[in-house]
Amino acid sequence: MHAMKERVYQANLQLPDWALVKLTWGNVSEINRELGVIVIKPSGVPYESMTADQMVVTDLDGNLLEEGGLKASSDLPTHVILYKGFESIGSVAHTHSTHAVTWAQSSRDIPVYGTTHADTFYGPVPNTRQLSQKEVEDAYEVNTGKVIVETFKERGIDPDAIPAVLVNGHGPFTWGKTPAKAIENSYVLDEVADMATQTEQIGGKENKLPQFVLDKHYFRKHGAGAYYGQG
Amino acid sequence: MHAMKERVYQANLQLPDWALVKLTWGNVSEINRELGVIVIKPSGVPYESMTADQMVVTDLDGNLLEEGGLKASSDLPTHVILYKGFESIGSVAHTHSTHAVTWAQSSRDIPVYGTTHADTFYGPVPNTRQLSQKEVEDAYEVNTGKVIVETFKERGIDPDAIPAVLVNGHGPFTWGKTPAKAIENSYVLDEVADMATQTEQIGGKENKLPQFVLDKHYFRKHGAGAYYGQG
Amino acid sequence: MHAMKERVYQANLQLPDWALVKLTWGNVSEINRELGVIVIKPSGVPYESMTADQMVVTDLDGNLLEEGGLKASSDLPTHVILYKGFESIGSVAHTHSTHAVTWAQSSRDIPVYGTTHADTFYGPVPNTRQLSQKEVEDAYEVNTGKVIVETFKERGIDPDAIPAVLVNGHGPFTWGKTPAKAIENSYVLDEVADMATQTEQIGGKENKLPQFVLDKHYFRKHGAGAYYGQG
Amino acid sequence: MHAMKERVYQANLQLPDWALVKLTWGNVSEINRELGVIVIKPSGVPYESMTADQMVVTDLDGNLLEEGGLKASSDLPTHVILYKGFESIGSVAHTHSTHAVTWAQSSRDIPVYGTTHADTFYGPVPNTRQLSQKEVEDAYEVNTGKVIVETFKERGIDPDAIPAVLVNGHGPFTWGKTPAKAIENSYVLDEVADMATQTEQIGGKENKLPQFVLDKHYFRKHGAGAYYGQG
Repeated sequence: MHAMKERVYQANLQLPDWALVKLTWGNVSEINRELGVIVIKPSGVPYESMTADQMVVTDLDGNLLEEGGLKASSDLPTHVILYKGFESIGSVAHTHSTHAVTWAQSSRDIPVYGTTHADTFYGPVPNTRQLSQKEVEDAYEVNTGKVIVETFKERGIDPDAIPAVLVNGHGPFTWGKTPAKAIENSYVLDEVADMATQTEQIGGKENKLPQFVLDKHYFRKHGAGAYYGQG
Repeated sequence: MHAMKERVYQANLQLPDWALVKLTWGNVSEINRELGVIVIKPSGVPYESMTADQMVVTDLDGNLLEEGGLKASSDLPTHVILYKGFESIGSVAHTHSTHAVTWAQSSRDIPVYGTTHADTFYGPVPNTRQLSQKEVEDAYEVNTGKVIVETFKERGIDPDAIPAVLVNGHGPFTWGKTPAKAIENSYVLDEVADMATQTEQIGGKENKLPQFVLDKHYFRKHGAGAYYGQG
Repeated sequence: MHAMKERVYQANLQLPDWALVKLTWGNVSEINRELGVIVIKPSGVPYESMTADQMVVTDLDGNLLEEGGLKASSDLPTHVILYKGFESIGSVAHTHSTHAVTWAQSSRDIPVYGTTHADTFYGPVPNTRQLSQKEVEDAYEVNTGKVIVETFKERGIDPDAIPAVLVNGHGPFTWGKTPAKAIENSYVLDEVADMATQTEQIGGKENKLPQFVLDKHYFRKHGAGAYYGQG
Repeated sequence: MHAMKERVYQANLQLPDWALVKLTWGNVSEINRELGVIVIKPSGVPYESMTADQMVVTDLDGNLLEEGGLKASSDLPTHVILYKGFESIGSVAHTHSTHAVTWAQSSRDIPVYGTTHADTFYGPVPNTRQLSQKEVEDAYEVNTGKVIVETFKERGIDPDAIPAVLVNGHGPFTWGKTPAKAIENSYVLDEVADMATQTEQIGGKENKLPQFVLDKHYFRKHGAGAYYGQG
């Protein structure tokens, strides 16, 4: 449990270092499905004074497991739903990074304009539909998780191939096998979002990356045929 | 008085650290209504050489209370009017932060495009009308304060719910219970302004946040039903 | 002479610290009209290895006065013409700062959109006409200086009131009584240019600052009636 | 060989310091045609833990020369083709820098809008055609090199005069006599790309730099008549 808390703590600290999070606007969690635990950042605690010990431990439904601890991030119910809906993932990250939020606010998917995108995300990064008034008023954070899972199910997207989503009017969630990978995906997502915005400013909107380049770049880094890195 | 000067000093120093202020373009003050004093940054003193002792102490009308001290910020009369018009506030901050100024210069309110905005500001951040020539030539800084208060009164905006304003053609003022909160609102405002500009660049102008999401996000952080943070 | 070299050296070093200059793309000089000398940065020397001693000393026509010294900045002839044309100035700075260059490249003056601009520049920052082929091929740097002086003369602009210019297709020159003031004007110019670009992106192009606000802001910081700062 | 590895290592480290590379998205190589060796960054190794010793040594066809070493950057075949096609160059650099990628994604050359561009690149920076599906599926990295060389040959561009290219939908490659020069060209390219994007935002698209200014600026820094720097 100590190592798990330490990983979650370090990943949370990396977010402001990468300028993806201002104030306390972000959170990272990790799940251990065998042990039946989730570890997540406490709610509203400043990064400067946060310690690894303060990471909050819950069961797989988000119920607190340690007495006397801090309150979990208010986004915990979203994380719980993502872990239930996406069975292969081991960590979830949420930020309000500037460029990803911009796209979330625009109600648009991020198109695949280049190989920087294709190296990490195997297709456009989807934007969810807006939640209904009822979904917002009843169990808002749960329904945020549900609309993400719904988006991937209905559009037939594999969450391992596109480990990121934009929640309409809100911001990005990303995930991965580990906290390090989940936040790396947040980092890449924001850069890809920035590049896409600027590409459109200079008239590049029609220049989508061909599918065969998307295939090439994604699969030279992922899967059985990958040949990038020392792996 | 020493603790008050220290808080005002620290809040002023935070502004360049957050890249909200260049050179000497900003000021923060705090009021103690029971003691009848306002403490504010001196005018035109570089941040690097400024000391807590140099903070200027005035009465509630802005008259200097300490002999031999420095001149107060030239924006002091604006702060005085805000304290008189908005009785619940304890601190005022003024910056020329890039993105908030951009909106001030555009003569537009900042629309609510997302939850990053809604978490802090319960509605569009208002832009004042332009001052008339007479208002500028007679008691410019006083009239800057008056047009802010007028904007909130005429449009029925609660200054505790939207603790920020854009002065047309000039820049932002923000406020809060404490100096720490007043400058935090300056920080959030600039980020929200940047996100709004970029959202419009990619065609998101029609995607305003629904009122029920604004309600949800604002009230999960503020008021009796709040459940964000450890509070 | 040592103090003059030190001031010029420190001002040159400040430019990369303020992110106004990449590599060796900038230069600052100072004139002492009574002693008949100009001190300027050497050409193409990296900032990291530069020393105050290496600053180059010339007469008022730009002829080297110290044997064995380094070559002066290739922009020296432009500085010389500016000192001859603008008799009240004591220092000239040249950068390729991103946002000021953007406006120089656009062939447009920077409009006065707000008080951040008005606090330093009493009117639009002018863009020169393009040089003719003959002017470029014969004494390019001299003619760059001449077209700046011509711009101010023909348009009746006081170089003390607007201490900055955009050379069409090239970049900004700024000036002041001292090197510290000349580079401060470079710093403000780049920020004002950035704010102007963003203001136009969100539709603020029609919202020019009224003349009476420009008057108010400029004269509360400059001239006999100034009341900003401790002066 | 040690000095060559050290130069390649230092140049690779400079890329994240200049904010041109995130994560492991970049690589620099150097060639010694007499010794018949290329030294290049290993694939996917984080900059923080990388050592000079880990630089990979190959022959002029990209075959590994040292047993037990790391795998070379997956972009090595592109570097090899560039060294074969451009016989005067001594180093190649590849980044995913934000603004250069933006132009690569837009399928447009970077126009010459100003002297900042002209000081380094003697004409528009070309964008390649898109690769065909067959070219991507068969020897992608080799064909990336070939389409760059083809672009320069077919358009009659001298790779010493314009030491940079945008690979359509991917990103920039730059080169030079040395690793220090190759990465400097990456640095200048990204700044020039940023300035070009912003110039177009404010309506400067028609204001191309005249050929005679391009000539003047390029040749005052390059070739027999150069007079910039201490050279």
